[in-house]
Amino acid sequence: MRELPPSHPFDDDKLKEECGVFGVIGVKDAANFVALGLHALQHRGQEAGGIVAHDPVQGFNSARRFGYVRDNFTEASLMETLPGPLSIGHVRYSTAGSKGQTAIRDVQPFFGEFAMGGAAIAHNGNLTNANALRRELIERGSIFQSSSDSECIIHLMARSLQRSIAERMKDALRRVEGAFSIVAMTRTKLIGVRDPLGVRPLVLGRIGEGYALASETCALDIIGAEFMREIEPGEMVVIQDGEIESFRPFEPKKPRFCVFEHVYFSRPDSILQGRSVYETRRQIGVELARETPVEADLVCPVPDSGTPAAIGFSQESGIPYAMGIIRNQYMGRTFIEPTEQIRNMGVRLKLNVNRALIKGKRVVLVDDSVVRGTTSRKIKDMILDAGAKEVHFRIASPPTAWPCFYGVDTPDREKLLAAKMTEDEMCEYLGVDSLRFISLDGLYRAAGEAKGRDAANPAYCDACFSGEYPVAPSDMIEKGFALKAAE
Amino acid sequence: MRELPPSHPFDDDKLKEECGVFGVIGVKDAANFVALGLHALQHRGQEAGGIVAHDPVQGFNSARRFGYVRDNFTEASLMETLPGPLSIGHVRYSTAGSKGQTAIRDVQPFFGEFAMGGAAIAHNGNLTNANALRRELIERGSIFQSSSDSECIIHLMARSLQRSIAERMKDALRRVEGAFSIVAMTRTKLIGVRDPLGVRPLVLGRIGEGYALASETCALDIIGAEFMREIEPGEMVVIQDGEIESFRPFEPKKPRFCVFEHVYFSRPDSILQGRSVYETRRQIGVELARETPVEADLVCPVPDSGTPAAIGFSQESGIPYAMGIIRNQYMGRTFIEPTEQIRNMGVRLKLNVNRALIKGKRVVLVDDSVVRGTTSRKIKDMILDAGAKEVHFRIASPPTAWPCFYGVDTPDREKLLAAKMTEDEMCEYLGVDSLRFISLDGLYRAAGEAKGRDAANPAYCDACFSGEYPVAPSDMIEKGFALKAAE
Amino acid sequence: MRELPPSHPFDDDKLKEECGVFGVIGVKDAANFVALGLHALQHRGQEAGGIVAHDPVQGFNSARRFGYVRDNFTEASLMETLPGPLSIGHVRYSTAGSKGQTAIRDVQPFFGEFAMGGAAIAHNGNLTNANALRRELIERGSIFQSSSDSECIIHLMARSLQRSIAERMKDALRRVEGAFSIVAMTRTKLIGVRDPLGVRPLVLGRIGEGYALASETCALDIIGAEFMREIEPGEMVVIQDGEIESFRPFEPKKPRFCVFEHVYFSRPDSILQGRSVYETRRQIGVELARETPVEADLVCPVPDSGTPAAIGFSQESGIPYAMGIIRNQYMGRTFIEPTEQIRNMGVRLKLNVNRALIKGKRVVLVDDSVVRGTTSRKIKDMILDAGAKEVHFRIASPPTAWPCFYGVDTPDREKLLAAKMTEDEMCEYLGVDSLRFISLDGLYRAAGEAKGRDAANPAYCDACFSGEYPVAPSDMIEKGFALKAAE
Amino acid sequence: MRELPPSHPFDDDKLKEECGVFGVIGVKDAANFVALGLHALQHRGQEAGGIVAHDPVQGFNSARRFGYVRDNFTEASLMETLPGPLSIGHVRYSTAGSKGQTAIRDVQPFFGEFAMGGAAIAHNGNLTNANALRRELIERGSIFQSSSDSECIIHLMARSLQRSIAERMKDALRRVEGAFSIVAMTRTKLIGVRDPLGVRPLVLGRIGEGYALASETCALDIIGAEFMREIEPGEMVVIQDGEIESFRPFEPKKPRFCVFEHVYFSRPDSILQGRSVYETRRQIGVELARETPVEADLVCPVPDSGTPAAIGFSQESGIPYAMGIIRNQYMGRTFIEPTEQIRNMGVRLKLNVNRALIKGKRVVLVDDSVVRGTTSRKIKDMILDAGAKEVHFRIASPPTAWPCFYGVDTPDREKLLAAKMTEDEMCEYLGVDSLRFISLDGLYRAAGEAKGRDAANPAYCDACFSGEYPVAPSDMIEKGFALKAAE
Repeated sequence: MRELPPSHPFDDDKLKEECGVFGVIGVKDAANFVALGLHALQHRGQEAGGIVAHDPVQGFNSARRFGYVRDNFTEASLMETLPGPLSIGHVRYSTAGSKGQTAIRDVQPFFGEFAMGGAAIAHNGNLTNANALRRELIERGSIFQSSSDSECIIHLMARSLQRSIAERMKDALRRVEGAFSIVAMTRTKLIGVRDPLGVRPLVLGRIGEGYALASETCALDIIGAEFMREIEPGEMVVIQDGEIESFRPFEPKKPRFCVFEHVYFSRPDSILQGRSVYETRRQIGVELARETPVEADLVCPVPDSGTPAAIGFSQESGIPYAMGIIRNQYMGRTFIEPTEQIRNMGVRLKLNVNRALIKGKRVVLVDDSVVRGTTSRKIKDMILDAGAKEVHFRIASPPTAWPCFYGVDTPDREKLLAAKMTEDEMCEYLGVDSLRFISLDGLYRAAGEAKGRDAANPAYCDACFSGEYPVAPSDMIEKGFALKAAE
Repeated sequence: MRELPPSHPFDDDKLKEECGVFGVIGVKDAANFVALGLHALQHRGQEAGGIVAHDPVQGFNSARRFGYVRDNFTEASLMETLPGPLSIGHVRYSTAGSKGQTAIRDVQPFFGEFAMGGAAIAHNGNLTNANALRRELIERGSIFQSSSDSECIIHLMARSLQRSIAERMKDALRRVEGAFSIVAMTRTKLIGVRDPLGVRPLVLGRIGEGYALASETCALDIIGAEFMREIEPGEMVVIQDGEIESFRPFEPKKPRFCVFEHVYFSRPDSILQGRSVYETRRQIGVELARETPVEADLVCPVPDSGTPAAIGFSQESGIPYAMGIIRNQYMGRTFIEPTEQIRNMGVRLKLNVNRALIKGKRVVLVDDSVVRGTTSRKIKDMILDAGAKEVHFRIASPPTAWPCFYGVDTPDREKLLAAKMTEDEMCEYLGVDSLRFISLDGLYRAAGEAKGRDAANPAYCDACFSGEYPVAPSDMIEKGFALKAAE
Repeated sequence: MRELPPSHPFDDDKLKEECGVFGVIGVKDAANFVALGLHALQHRGQEAGGIVAHDPVQGFNSARRFGYVRDNFTEASLMETLPGPLSIGHVRYSTAGSKGQTAIRDVQPFFGEFAMGGAAIAHNGNLTNANALRRELIERGSIFQSSSDSECIIHLMARSLQRSIAERMKDALRRVEGAFSIVAMTRTKLIGVRDPLGVRPLVLGRIGEGYALASETCALDIIGAEFMREIEPGEMVVIQDGEIESFRPFEPKKPRFCVFEHVYFSRPDSILQGRSVYETRRQIGVELARETPVEADLVCPVPDSGTPAAIGFSQESGIPYAMGIIRNQYMGRTFIEPTEQIRNMGVRLKLNVNRALIKGKRVVLVDDSVVRGTTSRKIKDMILDAGAKEVHFRIASPPTAWPCFYGVDTPDREKLLAAKMTEDEMCEYLGVDSLRFISLDGLYRAAGEAKGRDAANPAYCDACFSGEYPVAPSDMIEKGFALKAAE
Repeated sequence: MRELPPSHPFDDDKLKEECGVFGVIGVKDAANFVALGLHALQHRGQEAGGIVAHDPVQGFNSARRFGYVRDNFTEASLMETLPGPLSIGHVRYSTAGSKGQTAIRDVQPFFGEFAMGGAAIAHNGNLTNANALRRELIERGSIFQSSSDSECIIHLMARSLQRSIAERMKDALRRVEGAFSIVAMTRTKLIGVRDPLGVRPLVLGRIGEGYALASETCALDIIGAEFMREIEPGEMVVIQDGEIESFRPFEPKKPRFCVFEHVYFSRPDSILQGRSVYETRRQIGVELARETPVEADLVCPVPDSGTPAAIGFSQESGIPYAMGIIRNQYMGRTFIEPTEQIRNMGVRLKLNVNRALIKGKRVVLVDDSVVRGTTSRKIKDMILDAGAKEVHFRIASPPTAWPCFYGVDTPDREKLLAAKMTEDEMCEYLGVDSLRFISLDGLYRAAGEAKGRDAANPAYCDACFSGEYPVAPSDMIEKGFALKAAE
């Protein structure tokens, strides 16, 4: 299978969002809209995508493919096999399920035929008690077809004694723990649900007489839908015949939206919690410049995710903004290495330093995060090779010291640089003149919490920084994961 | 054949550079270096690529493929068929030759078997007397295999009475007119030549014991080669056994390097004429801000090519720089349009407006050029839809009013907006609050000519702006092209 | 998806065997043997194939592909993903399940993860109560992933209360009705089962220290295995650690092997019930010559399946055997028809008449069966066009008047020529000089029953000829299928 | 590139015909007819195929592909690119040109643009002075694009001083030596030529108002064309506007048609020299039975090419004909060999012995030829493994002791078993009970020469048996090939 070019030049050294979901009802050729919506959400999952559509005459149809939406869901011959006014879709990067080698069976939406008809679901997030549920379901005679945690939901629905699919879904979701933003469909209904904490985003839009659900607003923009509102944490909406019904199937909890969606996962042109993601990131740069000032000649982003924060840093500090590192827009990671070794070839395939610009300069490099640190070292090498006088790293998030269990692909804790080193040790390890992270408070301020983080009652899920998990990761604890010791 | 995603979101409305060339001698597995070099030059030609390599035992081998280098020249099984220490390659966008539907036979390098051995050539540029030469050669019994102008060179070489391939190449190139930067190879020599005006770039680098020739310095960077110098206009270098010989086969002329290489074609991390391309572009923005000031809230680039000029404009004007338009990094141009028409769907696939940022703002949009104007209109629509209060276009090049015949794909003159309208008419046509282009003098200043353009003796080829063609386009004149009337 | 060339030139007008199964235990790289075995069984199912293998370290792995074994399971890279000493496989033509457009999910072997470990099964045959079982299982919360009848077995196993997989399989198979020859595997066992009537074949062979199970002996030959014996009707064998255990889980019944396996489905080099299939077919020709003599100049087979009977007919009748129709060995069914219509183009792509041979001759054409009769008409046309004086059809099976529900793809009863016409009417419809079928008694004699068919107690399943179904097709009856009226 | 399944199970041990040619004029969508014609000629060249078509509006178009016609020239999208009423095509197996690894440039038809318009040619045969011609042409400045001998013709045409293409073709063909049956086209003419000896076949047919030229009559049959006559040795026909003109451009010679076309190359349903090929082959079996009688129980063909001769042998000898070896109709040569070695796996993939039939029998195996003898040994092994009592080989051609230089792929002389051994030595080497070849006289009788071979003036080219080459193979002699010593 052909190797897929990564969305970010250093995917190996990034946290990766896991999934994007999209659904639409009440339009002709709904699957074509879904293809567009998924294309706009491709950054949330580049490994595979799937679409299910329902047509009153032709019933349910589906297509699942590895690779990009633009390569797979643009053939007329395929899209014609997905007729009907109701459709949902999913893009995925493997989180739960077989890492690396996803089987096509793991590609969502999942479909179940129930006694009262079929239903398909697409899930963004991760269930923290999926292993336990799976074990129980297998013992009772369920046959799992995928290695995905999400499949539990459809089996729980199959075994529910409720008479309607929406009720069965409520039943099922009351059994699961963790993060879920779900778009589902029956023959006549489009359904959206968000877990009580609202960890992952989910938004509602209007298009003509119909409605759309999407992980992010940028997917509403591409189909020309008007953004109406976010689905609220703990809310389930059921859309049928132009009517939207809202339910609250779960016990209410204080919301804990993922702060990393602001930092890196969401697209800069999306609107989260009423704010431009781009603007939040620029503001992070502003906060960072205030918290960690430095004397330098240039502020350069590590492309592309560091760009908004670098702009903010430059604006606040007055140090000129410049494109010191140029990204190769054609990317590629699989060239044959010539026998005469090329130093840091992997990085060179994706980035090149603007040598004439950098030479002799004191450079502030703004990046979104440090995960393993491997890439940061290589970038520093390139910048120094090009003759920079000083290199100062400024990071638009706090040190990432804990894995995420809510739908983000994070390395094991022992691979996280910040789990093993202090900020100074990291600075020395990376070999830069200075390395500074934004504080958790600074991040919260940039994300709209003027007073910073309320330790007793934080507004966000920030477990990857703080180690405070709002839902106990029970499957992982069973496997031996050690929570942060109480202080 | 699968549709190739464009390098620039609005390829249909851009001038397109035609080719990139690369060659290397004196390294193991030279073809692997060539693949990397071509990858770095992909922006100069995305339609197809080819590599020829020579090995003392296995002789000449070649591979030609449609599509991107990263998709075609990364398989070990293919690259192993291209052994040897000497190799050249070419990436192309069709200029001469069959437009749109390039045959694989048109993909360079071209190869000829001569009595004294074989030679391969890769050509960047365009010959202005190719039609006449082709006619003459066919009458004398030559059989053309491609529709490419460049094939004339190999036939002229075949018919030369000189005894060495290098001498035959000189013979042949003295017969051709127009622009050429050529990388060629025999069994033992790597050859580089640039036409007397030096219209297209060509640079020389050192790698270990070997040498490399490339269209741009960014291709030296990717293989870790050290940039030595440019091949000079009118120079031919012959590299063999670690020795570089330099010849001057042509009558000397005043150089006329293509100024559009500075504006758009070359990569921002390349060095042209001793200057960072990025820095020249930023300086264009500075000049533009001086020449055409405006009151506004934000300066936004049209991504990605307008970015450096927008940074310069912001720095000179003091208006904050912002990413008002976000480019979809996955691109794609072939989705099935849903039955419910999506307005400007083509643009939406590639760009999205940062709505929350733009709303209510006076926006300066900086773009590199206006060709047909079709895209500029759509972008203006998107910006206004998002609620911008005012839209001011600032263009980093003078009005493009004349086609290029030296290796750039330009629309027919009647399709060029600037050939039909004054600046004010264009502004009205585009429906923006203001539209201003940089002056030719301003462009020359930004490109290092402190005194601006010397009308009697311009430092650059600027025919696309001025209509002054440094080499008469004889084939085109024969077909009825009307030169600018003498004033 | 590319169209697959058919195995027989007139697939559209043939009954089609549905599946072939193969399994091996106790050899290195078992999956490679399975690939070979499936290749030898390709005539039993050309649409898709699948292989599951188990390795103590790497667990279960599987690959499912559309198309031929030789195109799909010959890549080293794929086969290396299927390590281990135990493997089973399946080739299929869709019978139950979605006709025409098989989903990859319908491709066997099916796999189920049970509490005590995983199991995979490959099924040849068809279950006659699958619809009812499926309905019941869905009501109880099972989720079906395919549209295949065979999937019921794995769900029944999942819900069994037995503690071992073999016991669960017995439980499950006692619930199903119809025809099944199954090869299954757990982590350590290879299992073979045949339904009590033994409708479909299944044989056992020895290879080195290991054992193999296969639909036909020709698949033992290709891997160099020694044929030991047939699995008996109603027998289950469980092979582990070099030991074969035999069980009789079902109530004993009088065997009713499918007589059409002798006529057409099985390969002529296989051994069924101790007899060469080729020899049985030749003997059918002998019987046919005795029962329906004719004066003629040549006996020609309709290639390739009519060949052995034609040889027998020639030998018994003394009329010379000749290849009057030549099959194009490259086949193909999808050429673009030129605007000037070519008469019977579909047939011409596959067959051509040996015109110089046929001209002016009285020709006996021997074919294996008449299903819809469409092809027979075209062949007759070709033969007459070539100048034959007379055309006499002799058919190596009785009139096919009833559909098969035990694993053969038959048209609906109203499409079967013999369901609507007498032999004389068929002769007139086909426009031939004579048309005669072998009698049921003659067929039984050729198949080894010296006394012909014992009407009270027939030795074979011959429902497609006689309308006497040894297992009531209950799903079909529920859908309205009318059994033959009692006489 | 995917490996192509061979046409004959033992291609590696067969002489291989090199090419098939086809052309048609005066019909709508001529290229569709050409695709069908080439499909019928696929046995003459399975490696690659090409089609050129001309349309008054769209000019010349071509497509060249590796692989089978049925896989490459059946897409509507491709065939629509080949419009017009005039088209020629070619299928090839590499003879001259790069063996094994044909480049797409070597795939015919070849095309040349001349001053008076373009022409395309497709060549069956081989030129014996191509090396010398090529050398001369290169010295004069021609550039060869392929390694094919046939390209010389187009260069000679390009350099001819004649004013019409037909005249230039005469000029060119008077310079070449060897075997050629050529189909060519200009914008308005379809041209057919056969060399003075008429070594390779070429026939003319009528279809509606148009005409077709083909290597064999079976290609006329598939398009429903009526066979008119053979093009005569030394004849050139030029067809235009429904008129056929005939020319005799060469000095007349006594024809020497290739006798191996009768033995093996041509399809059994073709008509050569007024006789059914099948019937000639059957007659060879009759002669063989007379010349080399044997006591045995069964006569079995080595499928498929030995079949007609085996039928004849059986009929003459009275020994029953039987299918003792069954060919796997799905073939394939690239399975992964399991670690436990399977004896003669290569053969098993293609053939299987009908064990129950063969056991204890004395078997006559009839094959068409013995080339290297490697396959014959393996078949003998299989037959003996299956328990045959005796194995007698009867070969339908004399010993093949000399290579062919007229368009057949033969191993070097030292690889030919008959070049190194007497008949008795071969028998011992193969390990069979007897081995006998038909005599040259017997072969001539079967091919219609009642008196056998006239040594002074043989009716056929039989150089591969006799070593008497009717045209001196001058290129090969220059390379050191030793002709048979005069006796």
